[in-house]
Amino acid sequence: MPEYKAPLKDIQFVLDEMLHSEQHYQSLPGCEEATPDMVAAILEEGAKFAERVLAPLNQVGDREGCQLTDGEVKTPTGFKEAYQQFVEGGWPSLAHDPEWGGQGLPESIGIVLNEMVGSANWSWSMYPGLSHGAMNTIEAHGTEAQKQTYLTRLISGEWTGTMCLTESHCGTDLGMLKTKAEPQADGSYKISGTKIFISAGEHDMADNIVHIVLARLPDAPQGTKGISLFIVPKFLPNSDGNVGERNNLSCGSLEHKMGIHGNATCVMNFDGATGYLIGPENKGLNCMFTFMNTARLGTALQGLAHAEWGYQNSLAYARDRLQMRALNGPACPDKPADPIIVHPDVRRMLLTQKAFAEGGRALIYYCAQLVDRVNLTTDSDERQQADTQLAFLTPIAKAFLTETGFESANLGLQIFGGHGYISEWGMEQNVRDSRISMLYEGTTGIQALDLLGRKVLMTQGESLKSFTKVVHKFCQSQAENRAMQEFISPLARLNKEWGDLTTRIGMKAMMNREEVGAASVDYLMYSGYATMAYLWARMAVTAQQKLDAGEGDRSFYQAKLKTARFYFERILPRTKTLEATIDSGADNLLAMDEAEFSC
Amino acid sequence: MPEYKAPLKDIQFVLDEMLHSEQHYQSLPGCEEATPDMVAAILEEGAKFAERVLAPLNQVGDREGCQLTDGEVKTPTGFKEAYQQFVEGGWPSLAHDPEWGGQGLPESIGIVLNEMVGSANWSWSMYPGLSHGAMNTIEAHGTEAQKQTYLTRLISGEWTGTMCLTESHCGTDLGMLKTKAEPQADGSYKISGTKIFISAGEHDMADNIVHIVLARLPDAPQGTKGISLFIVPKFLPNSDGNVGERNNLSCGSLEHKMGIHGNATCVMNFDGATGYLIGPENKGLNCMFTFMNTARLGTALQGLAHAEWGYQNSLAYARDRLQMRALNGPACPDKPADPIIVHPDVRRMLLTQKAFAEGGRALIYYCAQLVDRVNLTTDSDERQQADTQLAFLTPIAKAFLTETGFESANLGLQIFGGHGYISEWGMEQNVRDSRISMLYEGTTGIQALDLLGRKVLMTQGESLKSFTKVVHKFCQSQAENRAMQEFISPLARLNKEWGDLTTRIGMKAMMNREEVGAASVDYLMYSGYATMAYLWARMAVTAQQKLDAGEGDRSFYQAKLKTARFYFERILPRTKTLEATIDSGADNLLAMDEAEFSC
Repeated sequence: MPEYKAPLKDIQFVLDEMLHSEQHYQSLPGCEEATPDMVAAILEEGAKFAERVLAPLNQVGDREGCQLTDGEVKTPTGFKEAYQQFVEGGWPSLAHDPEWGGQGLPESIGIVLNEMVGSANWSWSMYPGLSHGAMNTIEAHGTEAQKQTYLTRLISGEWTGTMCLTESHCGTDLGMLKTKAEPQADGSYKISGTKIFISAGEHDMADNIVHIVLARLPDAPQGTKGISLFIVPKFLPNSDGNVGERNNLSCGSLEHKMGIHGNATCVMNFDGATGYLIGPENKGLNCMFTFMNTARLGTALQGLAHAEWGYQNSLAYARDRLQMRALNGPACPDKPADPIIVHPDVRRMLLTQKAFAEGGRALIYYCAQLVDRVNLTTDSDERQQADTQLAFLTPIAKAFLTETGFESANLGLQIFGGHGYISEWGMEQNVRDSRISMLYEGTTGIQALDLLGRKVLMTQGESLKSFTKVVHKFCQSQAENRAMQEFISPLARLNKEWGDLTTRIGMKAMMNREEVGAASVDYLMYSGYATMAYLWARMAVTAQQKLDAGEGDRSFYQAKLKTARFYFERILPRTKTLEATIDSGADNLLAMDEAEFSC
Repeated sequence: MPEYKAPLKDIQFVLDEMLHSEQHYQSLPGCEEATPDMVAAILEEGAKFAERVLAPLNQVGDREGCQLTDGEVKTPTGFKEAYQQFVEGGWPSLAHDPEWGGQGLPESIGIVLNEMVGSANWSWSMYPGLSHGAMNTIEAHGTEAQKQTYLTRLISGEWTGTMCLTESHCGTDLGMLKTKAEPQADGSYKISGTKIFISAGEHDMADNIVHIVLARLPDAPQGTKGISLFIVPKFLPNSDGNVGERNNLSCGSLEHKMGIHGNATCVMNFDGATGYLIGPENKGLNCMFTFMNTARLGTALQGLAHAEWGYQNSLAYARDRLQMRALNGPACPDKPADPIIVHPDVRRMLLTQKAFAEGGRALIYYCAQLVDRVNLTTDSDERQQADTQLAFLTPIAKAFLTETGFESANLGLQIFGGHGYISEWGMEQNVRDSRISMLYEGTTGIQALDLLGRKVLMTQGESLKSFTKVVHKFCQSQAENRAMQEFISPLARLNKEWGDLTTRIGMKAMMNREEVGAASVDYLMYSGYATMAYLWARMAVTAQQKLDAGEGDRSFYQAKLKTARFYFERILPRTKTLEATIDSGADNLLAMDEAEFSC
C-alpha cells in the first residue's frame, strides 16, 4: 500500500533557507504576518490532512472511479467526506481576498498547500483545484454582485467551479469553438453547445457548480477575437443568493480514461442554459490569460507531485526488497540477498526522481514568489520585472516539470520490477495519473511554442534575459566561492550557451518561421535543464553555507550537495543532445512529403 | 477505433532487399524452399489474420480483461475463437521441427509472423507466444516420450504452455526460489509451491496447459545451481497421451495490472502436483539459457509492435485532425484549420516513431538471421560467430527496443492531445500494454548488466568486436560511396568511439566493479543507438541503390533516406549525453549514504 509523507523539511529548506521567505513576505504589503513560524504551523496542519485523509483515498479513487446515473455523478467512497473536512478546515479560502471571505495569505503559501494535497491524491485535488480558475475569473472580471453571489461561495468552498473551454473539434485551437450565447431580454444569455473534458464538471461534493463557459455571441467576430466568458451555474441562485432552480445543463457522459479515475471528466451539454456575461464581450480569451500563469503553475505542481510520490514509495521498496548481491560483494551477508538500493542502477533511478522532485519544488516555489510580487508589490518596475520573468518561466515549469514528473513516475515503477506493473503497489497508477499532465492546460508542444515563439523571439530575447541576468548575477556573487565552482562554472558556461543557442535559432527563424516549431520542444527542455541547474546550484550553495555554519541537520545538507552533484553530472549533460538536435534545423522534419509518411 | 495494417512492403524491403533473404535461405540446409515468393505468400495470409481477426479484438481484450470463476479463467470475447482459427490455419507449427509435426520453416520467418500477430494484439499473442518457451525446453531437453506426448500437441496448438519461474520474493534473483519437487516411487515428482506472474497460466483456449516449472529437489545445492526443470501439465496425459486426470495445481488469482488485460496473469498454486523432470537435475537454469536469446528477441518484438501501432494510428490522426495554422501561413486555406501533420513538432513525434519502428524491424530481422545460422548452419565457425554476435545483440534488442517502443507509444498518445488520454482512441492502451515490456524477460537493468558485464567485459570486449567488425567492414565497403557519407562518416566515427568508451569503462571497472552497474543502462542505450545507426545506414544504402537502379517505388525509397537522415540528425545525438553520463563514473551514485536518501 503506497504512502505519502509531506516533505516538510525540504519544503522549509526551499522556502525559508534558500528563498528567504521571511524577507520576501516582509517586503510585501499585507503579508507581514506570514512569519516562518506561522507558515510552518499552517503547513503542518495541511500535511496532516494530506497524509491522513487524502493519501489513503488515492487508490480508492483509482479503483472505484466515478459513476454517472441519471445525470448525477457519484464520486469515489470518502471523497465527499474529505471535501467536507477540507471546507470545515477553511482550506479553500487560504490564499484569497479577505473582502470575499478569504484569509488573505499570499499565493505562494497556497501553492505549498496545493503541492501536499496534490501529491497525496491528485484526482481529489482537482475538485477544489478547478475552482481556482472560476474564482480568479470572477475576482478579476466579475461585477460586485457576481462576486457577492459566486465568489464568496467559491472561496468558502460551499460551491465549486469549472472552466469549460474544450469542444470535441477544438482544444488547442479555441478560435474554432462553436458554443453559442443568445442575449435575453433580462440581460442574461441562453448558452447552447457541448463541452468536453470538463474536469469536476459534475459531482456530489458541493451544493452548486459554477461553470465558466467560453461561448460566442451571435454577432461575434470569427476566431479567438469573438469569444466571451459566461458564468453558468448548475443551480440558478435565488434572490438571496442561495441555490434555486436547476439550470438547463447536464453531464452527458463520463470519459473512460487512462488515469485520474477519481476525478469526473465530463461531457457537458448546455441546452439553452441561463448564463451571465463576465468581463467585456469578445474579450474572453484575454480575460483568461490574466491568470493563465497561475493555472499553469498549478499543473506544473502535478509533475512534482508524481515525482515525489514515485520517489517516496520506490525508495521504501528499494530498501526493503532483497534481490541479488552488490557487485563488490555482499552488503548484507546475513540476509539472503542485498536490498536493491545497493545496486548503482537502482540508485540512478532513485536519484533522478529525487533530483526532479526537489529541483521541481525549488522551481515552483521560486515562481510562486514571482506570483506574489506580481500580485502584491506596489513598485511598478518590480512588478513588471517579476511579471516578465514569470511569463518566461511558466511554460518551462509547466512542460518541463510534467515531462520529468512522468519520467520520474516511470522510474518509480521500474524500481519495483514486475511488481510495478501490478495495481496494488500503486506505482502504475502514479504513471497513469501523471500522463495527463503533459496534455491539459496546453500540451508540451503548445508550451514550447509559447516559450520560444511568443515569449523569447517576439521580445527579441528580452524575456530570456530577464532570467539569464538573474543567473549571471548569482554566478558572479559566487565567483570566489571555491568549493562551489563544480556547480558555478558549468552553470555560468551554460547560461552563456543558452543565449548563443537562442540567437542561432532566432537567425534561422528570420528566414523560415517553421524553424521555431522545429526547435521548440527541444528548446523548452534545454531551458528546463538550465533553469533547474540554477536552482540546484542555489540549493547547493545554501546547503554549503549551513554546513559551514554548523547549523541544522548535517546529513540533510550533505544529501543536498550529493544530489546537486548527481544533477550536474548525470542529468544536465542532456543539454548536449538537445543543443545538437536544435542545431540540426527544420529540414529533417519538413523534407518528408505528407504522402511519404505511409508510402 | 484504432486499426492495424501489416507493413508488408517494409517487411519485404528489410527481408529481401536489405538482408537478402533469398541467399540467406539458400545457404542454410533445409531452407531452400523458403523463396521470396513462398515467404511473401505466407506473410500475406498471416497479415490478413492479424489485421482482420486479431486487431479488432485488441480493445475488446483491454476492456473485458479475463475473469476467474471457480478456478476457471474466461478470456475476452473472441479470443478463444481466434485461437481456434490460428490452430486450424496451422500457424503454431510454422517454424518447428517436421519430426514433431512442424512445418520446418526457419525461425526468422516465424518472427515476422509473430511481429504481425503481436502488433495487432499483443495480449492475445502471448497465449501462443508463451508456448514457445515450453516447446523449446522440451525440444532441447525432453525425452523421446516427452516429445511425443507434449511437444507434438504444443506444436499443433492443441495444448499451450507456460514458463513458471517467478515467486513473490524472487524474479531477477532466481537462486532464491523455494518451490519444492519431491521424488516419487514411480519416477515422477510432487511439486509444491506458489508461482506468480504466470502469463497464460490458466485460460479456456486449449485442452491442456503444459507448465514448465522451476523447482528444487530435496538435496539440491543452494542458489542457482540447485534448480531443476519439471513438466507439470494441467491435466495428466492418459496412456494414449490424451487429456486425463486433473493435476493438483490451480490458478489462485489473477493480477490486476496496468495493461495487457486480455492476457491472464496468474498466481499458480502447485499443491503436490505431479511433475516430470526434464533435463538433468540441478541444471535447470542452464537448460533455460539455451533458448534465452530467442525468448528475449520475442520480447524485443513487443517494442517494435507498439511503435508500429502508435505510428500508424497517430499518423492517421495527424492527417485528419485540424488545429491551428502552419507557422509559414495556411497549408489548407479552404479548411477551418490545417491538419496537424503540418506542424514540425508533430512531424518530429511521427518520425521518431517511424525511425524506431522501421529501425527496430531491421534490427530484429537481422538478429533472426543470426538465430537461423545458429540453429541450422553446418559450419561450426560460422555458427560460433553467429552465436557470439547474437549473444551481444540480444540484450540490446530486448532493452533498447522496448524502451524506445514505450517512448514511441507515448509520442503516439501525445499527438492525439487530450484525446490520447481517452480510452476509445486506443493510444493510452498502447502505452499501458507497452510498459510491461521493459520489465519481464529481464528488466532493462538486467539486460544492461548482461550486456556490459557478462557479454562485453567478461570477454575482454570480444563480444563487442563481433559486431563492430561487421560495422567496420560495412563502412569500408561504402568508403567510395560519396552520396552516403552523411551516414557512413558519423557511423564509422561512432563505431570507433564505442570501442574507446568500452575500454574506459573496462579500466575503471578493474578498480571498482560497481562501475559496471553505474554505466550499464546508459551503455546499453548507447549501444542501441549505435546498432540502430548501422541498420539505418544499411537501409539508406539499399534505398539509394534502388533509386539509382530506377527500381520499385521511388517515394518509398526516398522516404527511407529521409527517415535515415532524421535518425542520424535527431536521434543519434543522444549518444553525446550518454557518453558524458557514462564517463561521469560511479561516485555520483554511490556517494549517498543509504540513510541520506530520506534525511
